[in-house]
Amino acid sequence: MVDDLTLVFSALADPTRRAILARLAEGDATVNQLAEPFAMTQQAVSKHLKVLEHARLISRTRTAQSRPCVLEPVRLDAAADWIARHRQVWADRHDRLAAHLATLRAKPRGGRAAR
Amino acid sequence: MVDDLTLVFSALADPTRRAILARLAEGDATVNQLAEPFAMTQQAVSKHLKVLEHARLISRTRTAQSRPCVLEPVRLDAAADWIARHRQVWADRHDRLAAHLATLRAKPRGGRAAR
Repeated sequence: MVDDLTLVFSALADPTRRAILARLAEGDATVNQLAEPFAMTQQAVSKHLKVLEHARLISRTRTAQSRPCVLEPVRLDAAADWIARHRQVWADRHDRLAAHLATLRAKPRGGRAAR
Repeated sequence: MVDDLTLVFSALADPTRRAILARLAEGDATVNQLAEPFAMTQQAVSKHLKVLEHARLISRTRTAQSRPCVLEPVRLDAAADWIARHRQVWADRHDRLAAHLATLRAKPRGGRAAR
């Protein structure tokens, strides 16, 4: 079974799908409305929407005739959180390293070593 | 040609590669050191490292014998920025919608409608 984060990052790994998400961030849209700016067939757009839906980055109303696509930001948050968490671990490590180097500079080992 | 963001998101779309990045956030490591916790062959880890290197999420020293792998956070930042930007557009839209609804509630259309 593929985990959620892998589904989300896979879905984001395509410029057309990212453009569709960018469009949906600005407002809900139907498949027809999404197909227009991309000069793509409805079928091609539908394939991309299925990937986005599977990753739960978007949802589609089942009841309305037009079935507009809606961005679901929760999964985007999960992806951003993963990146931010590891970015932070990296930054903390570099802060500790900088602090350690500052300590070394502040306390020279004296004598012949500190020319 | 595949664009940079697609390369980064593709590289992140694998649990082993994400675990490798998590490990490298804590400190540089050689292929041997990376292979250990994953119970993987060096060859399998090397394949994943190539994908991460191609996406420029990591770099490897060419000179040192041990060739440690180093996390390159710049590309992680680019991925996080993409998500944050569209998350913001979505949030702004919802704020505007909420403000609009508040205006509608504050100014009832008067008379018979506002019972």
